[in-house]
Amino acid sequence: MPRLIKKRSRKAGLPPGTLVHIGEQKAEEVRITVIDYDEARFQEKEIKTVEECFLFKDKPTVTWINVDGIHEVEVLGPLGECFGLHPLVLEDILNTEQRPKLEDFGDYLFVVLKTFSYNDPSDEVEPEQISLILGPGFVLSFQEREGDVFNPIRERVRNGKGRIRRMGADYLAYALLDLVVDNYFIVLEQVGEKVEFLEEELVTNPTPETLQTIHNLKREMIFLRKSVWPLREVIGGLERGESSLIEESTGIYLRDVYDHTIQVIDTIETFRDMISGMLDIYLSSVSNRMNEVMKVLTIIATIFIPLTLVAGIYGMNFQYMPELEWRWGYPMFWLVVLAIGVLMVVYFRRKKWL
Amino acid sequence: MPRLIKKRSRKAGLPPGTLVHIGEQKAEEVRITVIDYDEARFQEKEIKTVEECFLFKDKPTVTWINVDGIHEVEVLGPLGECFGLHPLVLEDILNTEQRPKLEDFGDYLFVVLKTFSYNDPSDEVEPEQISLILGPGFVLSFQEREGDVFNPIRERVRNGKGRIRRMGADYLAYALLDLVVDNYFIVLEQVGEKVEFLEEELVTNPTPETLQTIHNLKREMIFLRKSVWPLREVIGGLERGESSLIEESTGIYLRDVYDHTIQVIDTIETFRDMISGMLDIYLSSVSNRMNEVMKVLTIIATIFIPLTLVAGIYGMNFQYMPELEWRWGYPMFWLVVLAIGVLMVVYFRRKKWL
Amino acid sequence: MPRLIKKRSRKAGLPPGTLVHIGEQKAEEVRITVIDYDEARFQEKEIKTVEECFLFKDKPTVTWINVDGIHEVEVLGPLGECFGLHPLVLEDILNTEQRPKLEDFGDYLFVVLKTFSYNDPSDEVEPEQISLILGPGFVLSFQEREGDVFNPIRERVRNGKGRIRRMGADYLAYALLDLVVDNYFIVLEQVGEKVEFLEEELVTNPTPETLQTIHNLKREMIFLRKSVWPLREVIGGLERGESSLIEESTGIYLRDVYDHTIQVIDTIETFRDMISGMLDIYLSSVSNRMNEVMKVLTIIATIFIPLTLVAGIYGMNFQYMPELEWRWGYPMFWLVVLAIGVLMVVYFRRKKWL
Amino acid sequence: MPRLIKKRSRKAGLPPGTLVHIGEQKAEEVRITVIDYDEARFQEKEIKTVEECFLFKDKPTVTWINVDGIHEVEVLGPLGECFGLHPLVLEDILNTEQRPKLEDFGDYLFVVLKTFSYNDPSDEVEPEQISLILGPGFVLSFQEREGDVFNPIRERVRNGKGRIRRMGADYLAYALLDLVVDNYFIVLEQVGEKVEFLEEELVTNPTPETLQTIHNLKREMIFLRKSVWPLREVIGGLERGESSLIEESTGIYLRDVYDHTIQVIDTIETFRDMISGMLDIYLSSVSNRMNEVMKVLTIIATIFIPLTLVAGIYGMNFQYMPELEWRWGYPMFWLVVLAIGVLMVVYFRRKKWL
Amino acid sequence: MPRLIKKRSRKAGLPPGTLVHIGEQKAEEVRITVIDYDEARFQEKEIKTVEECFLFKDKPTVTWINVDGIHEVEVLGPLGECFGLHPLVLEDILNTEQRPKLEDFGDYLFVVLKTFSYNDPSDEVEPEQISLILGPGFVLSFQEREGDVFNPIRERVRNGKGRIRRMGADYLAYALLDLVVDNYFIVLEQVGEKVEFLEEELVTNPTPETLQTIHNLKREMIFLRKSVWPLREVIGGLERGESSLIEESTGIYLRDVYDHTIQVIDTIETFRDMISGMLDIYLSSVSNRMNEVMKVLTIIATIFIPLTLVAGIYGMNFQYMPELEWRWGYPMFWLVVLAIGVLMVVYFRRKKWL
Repeated sequence: MPRLIKKRSRKAGLPPGTLVHIGEQKAEEVRITVIDYDEARFQEKEIKTVEECFLFKDKPTVTWINVDGIHEVEVLGPLGECFGLHPLVLEDILNTEQRPKLEDFGDYLFVVLKTFSYNDPSDEVEPEQISLILGPGFVLSFQEREGDVFNPIRERVRNGKGRIRRMGADYLAYALLDLVVDNYFIVLEQVGEKVEFLEEELVTNPTPETLQTIHNLKREMIFLRKSVWPLREVIGGLERGESSLIEESTGIYLRDVYDHTIQVIDTIETFRDMISGMLDIYLSSVSNRMNEVMKVLTIIATIFIPLTLVAGIYGMNFQYMPELEWRWGYPMFWLVVLAIGVLMVVYFRRKKWL
Repeated sequence: MPRLIKKRSRKAGLPPGTLVHIGEQKAEEVRITVIDYDEARFQEKEIKTVEECFLFKDKPTVTWINVDGIHEVEVLGPLGECFGLHPLVLEDILNTEQRPKLEDFGDYLFVVLKTFSYNDPSDEVEPEQISLILGPGFVLSFQEREGDVFNPIRERVRNGKGRIRRMGADYLAYALLDLVVDNYFIVLEQVGEKVEFLEEELVTNPTPETLQTIHNLKREMIFLRKSVWPLREVIGGLERGESSLIEESTGIYLRDVYDHTIQVIDTIETFRDMISGMLDIYLSSVSNRMNEVMKVLTIIATIFIPLTLVAGIYGMNFQYMPELEWRWGYPMFWLVVLAIGVLMVVYFRRKKWL
Repeated sequence: MPRLIKKRSRKAGLPPGTLVHIGEQKAEEVRITVIDYDEARFQEKEIKTVEECFLFKDKPTVTWINVDGIHEVEVLGPLGECFGLHPLVLEDILNTEQRPKLEDFGDYLFVVLKTFSYNDPSDEVEPEQISLILGPGFVLSFQEREGDVFNPIRERVRNGKGRIRRMGADYLAYALLDLVVDNYFIVLEQVGEKVEFLEEELVTNPTPETLQTIHNLKREMIFLRKSVWPLREVIGGLERGESSLIEESTGIYLRDVYDHTIQVIDTIETFRDMISGMLDIYLSSVSNRMNEVMKVLTIIATIFIPLTLVAGIYGMNFQYMPELEWRWGYPMFWLVVLAIGVLMVVYFRRKKWL
Repeated sequence: MPRLIKKRSRKAGLPPGTLVHIGEQKAEEVRITVIDYDEARFQEKEIKTVEECFLFKDKPTVTWINVDGIHEVEVLGPLGECFGLHPLVLEDILNTEQRPKLEDFGDYLFVVLKTFSYNDPSDEVEPEQISLILGPGFVLSFQEREGDVFNPIRERVRNGKGRIRRMGADYLAYALLDLVVDNYFIVLEQVGEKVEFLEEELVTNPTPETLQTIHNLKREMIFLRKSVWPLREVIGGLERGESSLIEESTGIYLRDVYDHTIQVIDTIETFRDMISGMLDIYLSSVSNRMNEVMKVLTIIATIFIPLTLVAGIYGMNFQYMPELEWRWGYPMFWLVVLAIGVLMVVYFRRKKWL
Repeated sequence: MPRLIKKRSRKAGLPPGTLVHIGEQKAEEVRITVIDYDEARFQEKEIKTVEECFLFKDKPTVTWINVDGIHEVEVLGPLGECFGLHPLVLEDILNTEQRPKLEDFGDYLFVVLKTFSYNDPSDEVEPEQISLILGPGFVLSFQEREGDVFNPIRERVRNGKGRIRRMGADYLAYALLDLVVDNYFIVLEQVGEKVEFLEEELVTNPTPETLQTIHNLKREMIFLRKSVWPLREVIGGLERGESSLIEESTGIYLRDVYDHTIQVIDTIETFRDMISGMLDIYLSSVSNRMNEVMKVLTIIATIFIPLTLVAGIYGMNFQYMPELEWRWGYPMFWLVVLAIGVLMVVYFRRKKWL
């Protein structure tokens, strides 16, 4: 489970625009790759110094600069300057505590997103913040960690598959957004499997661990929800096409991503409803088992305690107890005991306690 | 119960517009039927190759092409091209995970709907996705499974009953929508019967299975709700008549469907309220029974444990216990025991425990 | 309690505008009365054939045609045609499953309302659907059952009391609406009495029947709410005065009804809040009583079980048990028993268990 | 606690504008006082007949007519006629079931408010309805009961303290509103004290009475909320300054009252949250105590029942029981008993049950 | 925990604009410091008499007057007059019960904020009200208590770090706002740590104190929420830039603070969700433990009570009890006892009770 809130406090009081990385360092070192393409040409290279980026800036081709690892302030600063980014934008990229948002700075758009991956050993959802800058002819993307999230797009650009090479930077930005949203479906599928597994476990064999799992799922849902809700507004804002950076032909694709986002939100809400329903089921199944235990106790007590009294009575030492001297006293005692026992069992059967 | 979320993951990273069928294959083979009519003429035929459809495209009559089974990508592709559908529309038709929506592409409207049927053996609601394309003079409808959902309309067109033959393609689309919404009432009636049955069971004989049934109903309601809520917007959007494909005279009929949709939503909300009320009733009836069991246990213990002590006392072997030698000691013991017993019973009667 | 959902299913698939009565038949036969008046003239008559109505249609006076019983399709059809009603309007009048709504057809307004009455023997709320048509110079009202709901208005028209005879058909429609809303207050008063009665019962003597009553009340509130909420929009729509059928002078009266509707909704919400509060109280009073029972059990067990052990010990048959031969062994035993008992009682007093 | 709903039913069916007093009669007799002032002049008198009021109507001074007790229809009728009030306004003043509202009749504004006072002996909140009419140069105020609610204003007008004598009738109306809203703070302070007291009681010594008090507070909150929420709209409506009766300079003061109203609503919502939190605490503290009781029972049973079995065994009368004849059999028995007891206690300590 | 509601009552009835301090007195004496700067000059001084402030009023530099301690009415009065503040503004500054708000008086803006600090010994959140006045070329700030909240800003102004010395008074106001919002993150970090600690405690060792802590956290969240929600509107209002006092270049910084505020609200809502989830966990873990206790009790009772009966039977004194005289009676008794015991244990193992 990600930490609830990261140490932001060390930033309090610094002038706005001061670049401070907030969050864990997830990548070993910062890695910058540039992909530069148009319908005819394609160039891909990993660069070592930020200055190399500058060469691509004013080319008419689409330039995609991807930065893995955002903890090195020295790298982001010059990059930001080169592309004319506002200091507050850089500050937001470095702060992994952002909620998804879209900001229109006129000559470029700034989008913050969250993506999730299931960490296999710990079975926990891990968030990652992705920032996109869409400018005229270029897209900058920032990831917290080196990963293969964007590989399918890279592959498509390399192979010229689909229409991506024929379209502009706005389509590239759309493709990245689409990938992030598609990614949510993968996480939700895994959550869905957990939910279905839990529903079965609840019926067959609920344990306190089941409760813990329900609680963890609930927390994950709170977390996912917090990250996906604002996305609706973000993509809605892009789709409405108020920015001249987005061509009309891309609008219809953005509407598609928008639909997917709504679907993700819908599914999250459904899961939330189902998870809180499971809590009710769990609690009442605990009640039911308690009930069952109580019934056993009550049946035992109700049958044996009166019989114990009878046995106790004939264990008394009164000098004058005629029954004790009867020839058939002891067999009669057994008769009485068995009769009481049988009657009790019949009675409880009737009351559906047995 | 339908699966919570279908395997969408295999689509992640593919270029948009790639046709991939998402969901179960519900029909054996794809079946395409064409109905072509105006006030005077009527023609109905099942076609084998998609190309036959093309003949109907530009006729002035109303053409209704119905496709049962959407798992064969090879069939949908050419059909879409013929009627000039956007690749994203075809993608959405193939993806049975859609939420109901309306998209206006200018020269055609695209509507996604969900319909439900009660599967008799398993007593579970089964969803089916229905997609409609309304263009000038034609309606395309796509069903997941071969079924008789649209038969009443077919019948009306065949017989020329009602005003359907005198009206255009928009009225046909309305008629299909109306049928889908009317269908919800049938499902809700069945849910309503279950709810009423459960309410009685809750009062007479609640069991843990009752709880399971409540939970299942709740889940069904979550599911139905998710499918019907967006429909309001869809039909509201059609009714507002912003598309030139819908004639004004059809508007009043759409308003009627809109009213029905609101009614369906209303009923679903009412059921949700009632079902969560039933959960409360169930839980408190479990508590009540536990209470009753506890009382029995307490009464038994309270009456017999003190008596057992008395019997134990006179079973002691002290040498000097005057009572043991009294002539009437034993009868007196019985008197005391009975007196205590009677007093206890009277006391519990007073306390309303018996 | 009214049935949750009426058999609407037999309508599914019929062409729109087909007249089918949905709901129970509540009146023996259809009864039509006409009241025709202006400031000077007044005429009231019960008519046998629908055709008689036609005479009143074009008169400059205000014509009020009231139909009790809506199950006979043959009567409504011609009436609708005479006054130029759309087939969908007639369909809605016949379908008692409507939610309250207002539809403006330009030359007439169509209003659907729900009214309630407490059925004395079964103590259950019974709904009735009332449809109003307001046209130029006429009002048509349709009731499910012959009743005296509208009698006060009839009386006022007959006697010329108030300003009703001086005003037009819109004022008559207002007066009918006002009566329906005033009627809700009567039902709510009865509900309020039940709520107050329940609150007292909860404190003095809660039983499982109390729970059942709370549940029934809750269900009634769900039902009432569903019927009254949309009324707000209906009357608000009338008040906004967009229809030329409603004169400005009537607007102020409609605002008054609107206020009353808000008040009804407010009261329903308050009752809902109170009823769910009562459920909490009930559940915790059940818990409290369980607690009390448990305490009694624990006290009995804690006092008597150790004493029984002591008695059991001196009932053992060891050959060498010095205490048994002591002269004061038996009285000492009693001393010990009483001392333990007294100490226990003191201890429980301290713990506030006694 | 005020009654939930007052007998409104006797009004049902009467023509609108019929003056009927609804609610309890709270004042002995109707008392009318007139205060007439401008910056220079001041006149205050109690009048006996309504006709005296008429003299003040057209004077250029500010006239404030206060009516205590609204149960006498004969008094209100002529007063309303003199100031040209609509019959529906008079009807609303008489009906103490109103929710707060603002109505703009063009030449006068009609405001309904609720005020509350804590009734000392019964410790219950008592509502009172206050109606204000603001016309050009006059304010009419109607109270249900003779009281000193408005005394501070009267005092300020008499002494010419503050700016009240220099301002017009709209400022007077504002001052009355401000007083009513300030009054809520007093009631909320008392509620706040109750809440804090309850929170302490919950921790130290919760009893079923605590639950009753929580429930009563909750009910009071429902009641207060219902009365204050609409006030926001009322004062917001006045502040927006759409009426020419309110001068711009008064607007800023109204904004201040508006802020206070929001603050009152905020506080009510906070109290509601806290009260429902307290219910949870109460319920779980009941559970906790039950738990504690169960533990005591279980410990007693677990320690003593096995020992009782041991004692019972050596009380058996088998002829051949070697232990009975052992020299140290009885002391060994004690050893065993004590050892078992000590082990049990150690075990429970470990399990944290002791 | 701060008191729920402060004694506002003593103000009721006073004319508006009367200066009365509401709240606790938190500072010993009122302390006024003036900082006056532009890009070139810088002057800082503590002043003793209010009159000294007047000198700074009309200078072209940016003047920041900070007042610590607001309980002395005599100090605020003249200050307000000098800067032309409306009496209602002064009244609001003195009343520490304000909710955050923004008021635009044309020639100055009035902002009320709440800040929080964790009081170390009592571990409770302590609120403080901060009021800001932004006028042309000056900022007035009012704090309840002398503190170092604004020190980072003072430092930045002194050193000319960042762009603060180059910008106007609006940027200074923004910097103060930003600091207040950053401060919330610090408080939320501490709350987050508490929440994480509690989550662990819940799993390992829940006690009634855990419940109390959950309740306290919940209350704190209610409190924080109440203070931060309105802030969104306040900063949103500033950002929308309707006031000419705020230059466009500052707008982008305000948007940044706005984002932070949304993030704070988001985090508070997440915490609220998590805390109410913890309550559920707590309650069900209490249930679980009760269940465990009940099982122990039932197992003990079920094993030993029947055995006690058997022992009791052979303790009876019937003259003719053949078993008592059997040579192997006593060993057989032991066999039976052990067999029953073992069978029981096996049975409970099966039922998963052991």
